Amino acid sequence: MEPTTMILFGATGDLAKRKIYPALFNLFLGGKLPRGFSVFGLGRREWSDDVFRSNVEQAVRQFSRRKPMDPDRGLADFLGLFRYNVLEIDRESDYRELLSVVERREAAQSLPPNRLFYLSVGPEHFETIALNIQSSGLGSANGWKRLVIEKPFGHDLQSARELNRVLNHAFAEEEIYRIDHYLGKPVVQQLKALQQANPVLQALWSHRYIANVQISAGEADGVGLRAGYYDHIGALRDMFQNHLLQLLMTAAIQLSQDSGPEEVRWKKRNVMEAVDLLQKEDVRARVVRGQYAAGRVDGQDVVGYTREPGIAPDSRTETFVAARLHIDNNAWRGVPFYLRTGKRMKEKSTRIVVEFKEPLRPKSVGGVAPNLLIIEIGPNEGISLQFNATEHGPNGGFKPVRIELHRNPEDSPESYENLIGDALEGDATYFAHWDEIELSWRWVQPVLDAFEEELVPLHYYEAGTYGPDASDALLAEDGNSWWLDDREERTSETKEGERYALYANH
Amino acid sequence: MEPTTMILFGATGDLAKRKIYPALFNLFLGGKLPRGFSVFGLGRREWSDDVFRSNVEQAVRQFSRRKPMDPDRGLADFLGLFRYNVLEIDRESDYRELLSVVERREAAQSLPPNRLFYLSVGPEHFETIALNIQSSGLGSANGWKRLVIEKPFGHDLQSARELNRVLNHAFAEEEIYRIDHYLGKPVVQQLKALQQANPVLQALWSHRYIANVQISAGEADGVGLRAGYYDHIGALRDMFQNHLLQLLMTAAIQLSQDSGPEEVRWKKRNVMEAVDLLQKEDVRARVVRGQYAAGRVDGQDVVGYTREPGIAPDSRTETFVAARLHIDNNAWRGVPFYLRTGKRMKEKSTRIVVEFKEPLRPKSVGGVAPNLLIIEIGPNEGISLQFNATEHGPNGGFKPVRIELHRNPEDSPESYENLIGDALEGDATYFAHWDEIELSWRWVQPVLDAFEEELVPLHYYEAGTYGPDASDALLAEDGNSWWLDDREERTSETKEGERYALYANH
Repeated sequence: MEPTTMILFGATGDLAKRKIYPALFNLFLGGKLPRGFSVFGLGRREWSDDVFRSNVEQAVRQFSRRKPMDPDRGLADFLGLFRYNVLEIDRESDYRELLSVVERREAAQSLPPNRLFYLSVGPEHFETIALNIQSSGLGSANGWKRLVIEKPFGHDLQSARELNRVLNHAFAEEEIYRIDHYLGKPVVQQLKALQQANPVLQALWSHRYIANVQISAGEADGVGLRAGYYDHIGALRDMFQNHLLQLLMTAAIQLSQDSGPEEVRWKKRNVMEAVDLLQKEDVRARVVRGQYAAGRVDGQDVVGYTREPGIAPDSRTETFVAARLHIDNNAWRGVPFYLRTGKRMKEKSTRIVVEFKEPLRPKSVGGVAPNLLIIEIGPNEGISLQFNATEHGPNGGFKPVRIELHRNPEDSPESYENLIGDALEGDATYFAHWDEIELSWRWVQPVLDAFEEELVPLHYYEAGTYGPDASDALLAEDGNSWWLDDREERTSETKEGERYALYANH
Repeated sequence: MEPTTMILFGATGDLAKRKIYPALFNLFLGGKLPRGFSVFGLGRREWSDDVFRSNVEQAVRQFSRRKPMDPDRGLADFLGLFRYNVLEIDRESDYRELLSVVERREAAQSLPPNRLFYLSVGPEHFETIALNIQSSGLGSANGWKRLVIEKPFGHDLQSARELNRVLNHAFAEEEIYRIDHYLGKPVVQQLKALQQANPVLQALWSHRYIANVQISAGEADGVGLRAGYYDHIGALRDMFQNHLLQLLMTAAIQLSQDSGPEEVRWKKRNVMEAVDLLQKEDVRARVVRGQYAAGRVDGQDVVGYTREPGIAPDSRTETFVAARLHIDNNAWRGVPFYLRTGKRMKEKSTRIVVEFKEPLRPKSVGGVAPNLLIIEIGPNEGISLQFNATEHGPNGGFKPVRIELHRNPEDSPESYENLIGDALEGDATYFAHWDEIELSWRWVQPVLDAFEEELVPLHYYEAGTYGPDASDALLAEDGNSWWLDDREERTSETKEGERYALYANH
């Protein structure tokens, strides 16, 4: 890794405190920061370096997965990497001043001017910052420059294009690292390695053997403190356009041994390009829109969405979306991809289930479950494969058994740690790329329009369930149903010979 | 099942006592004998029905997997099925007398004349018996007739053809049930069912995904009491021509959901027909011939083959054969099948290992083991699949883990029980059919010739090993080696997360 100066906008903010500083600290402990690494924190507050460092220290003590050890020698070295500069986002002179500070430090330490700009600020500031980086000369050094940004990348197709156009004034696409923290999950990154290590898995990765793919991201929480923001956004923009479609692309590509970031980018783009587009009139046949009503979650009564503080009583914002997508290419033709996300669902759980084609024995005879590949992304993190083993009961038959191919260890890195590490190395494999974003918005746009124009019914679902019945009906049209939707079925134990009552409920 | 009269030649013999009566008793206990079933035991000894029944009772008490319970009501009913007739094999009048006894009983009970002839006698008697069944009228009734025989089916291609010609005087091919007890093993019969229940397994069953198939049948015993017989026969005839080639055919066919006996027969024939034939001059490049020397088995010193009682000191009979075969059809082109059998090997074990193609990561990097399907036929009986799971050690990487898809329960039926039950039902699926026998001998004949003419070296191997080094070298030519040849590697435990030191030794 080359020496790098990280220039962090929003250094006094919540995301920096909860995610970025702890991630940097763990990279530091793991020896995964570059030589000659330093961080210039930027904010409006008049902090000194010392105040900044003590804030970083507090963040690390509170949120890092690995805690600073006494006598804290490591921590002191780590904090020494941080400096603070006051910066008004729209004042160009502040950028020039920053440039001279940065250049002085680079010169003093004979470091090449490699600069990683991390925008931990609202998207309304992206344009101003990008333009000022450009005009101040901060971004036109002899080293490399990179930009790390976070969602939202626009709120519709048009605004996303506009945002990208602005960013491109200062940064080329290859210089932009868009964080989608679902892609930073160790289990997602492990999937490719497991496929490569198990030719048997790789062989099965096509429409010849796969019946359908289910990608589900449920939250038990309600809208919480984000009410004002969320009510203007909804689940489609907040979760579906980015995280779910990124998981779809990630699941659908098959990588060769030495796939680099360019191949991943190219293949994800091809997948998303092949997803069949809807006309807004057709949306209601493929997309289910829901909003949670009152109910019980984890034994607590909770109010419906429109009774949440900060939500308009007549709000028609969706808190749940389910959809059936088709990827019209040779690998996936005929295999439905079912995507689903919702708030106030029965449990917090993000997973991908790959259902393999029917056993030859008809379901009716002996109740043989399909083979499944189960990728638990969060909060459980693991990958297992479900087979049918012989059952030695009075009538013989088969019982589903699972083999666990991966389970995250207790101390596995968080998304931000993986992703910031990748950005420092210049590896864009697990980031969202512009083509993917644009194509995702292209798919989502007619759905947004159909919601807006009320072409799609809004189904209310009881909080603490798996969403509206229409979501189940969507799969039932194809003779399918959501896998693992009952807690009893979803034990994470995978011991040999264990019995799963999967089929009885299916 | 239709009412059946079983006519048993060799009723006073050892096989009947150890295998046939216990098998019939367990079928009886399981309610799997036909209504109107009776057994006419035949022998030269002047036994009464009572003496016969008391011999059957003794056999059941000694050898049955399920023991007669007090107050033995079941046993008395069972013994009531047995009658005894004296019969000189070459005296036609004895057959006529038997016919009238059988007809009288059939008439008294209004049973159709369905007759199952079971020849539990040496093959030198098959011709005489078949001709007498034919000429006496025993075999030309209005019901069905079936013939059950045991190996050896000839001692070379010529004699096998002659034997079959003789049998065909009295029985059509569809009426002949040739027992190969390896095909009666529950685990072999389970393989098809498991493939059907796991589309994932079925998908993998071809040269696209399989690197090689290893079929191994080792015995820890030496030649024992069979010395006089064995020294004229050798491992090639005793094990390879029948059991190993039958397992090869069974492993190589892929069956659809409703494959009946005819399809199995047809597919096995096609496989064996596609096995590439050797010229005797080419045998030494593909076949390893071995004979055990002195060594240690299970901690005991044992003598070499030529020091065994009853073996000529200069005997060059092979006690070990290994061979590489190719099946030249679309399903298996390019996939070597390695077959191996031997006496005085390190352990008694019959198994099939299917090695899937190489992981994409080269072996040298991180030591990733191939995926394996392991079919343990005896004495352990089970089927498991080996994957690579992520390892959470300091350097990451993968460890092999297994999922057990089948394990025989303690009280699973023996081969004879399955096969006699199948013969009573008229289901020839798991029997050896004439085409297969003829084609097996056709493949074996040039090997026999090459051994006879000393075109192939005789390798001596230490008793208690896995055979001569040449057997390992045969696989090493293709960059392969025999899987699971070290006891430490072959633990039958398959718990999740368990570590196998498979690769270190490979």
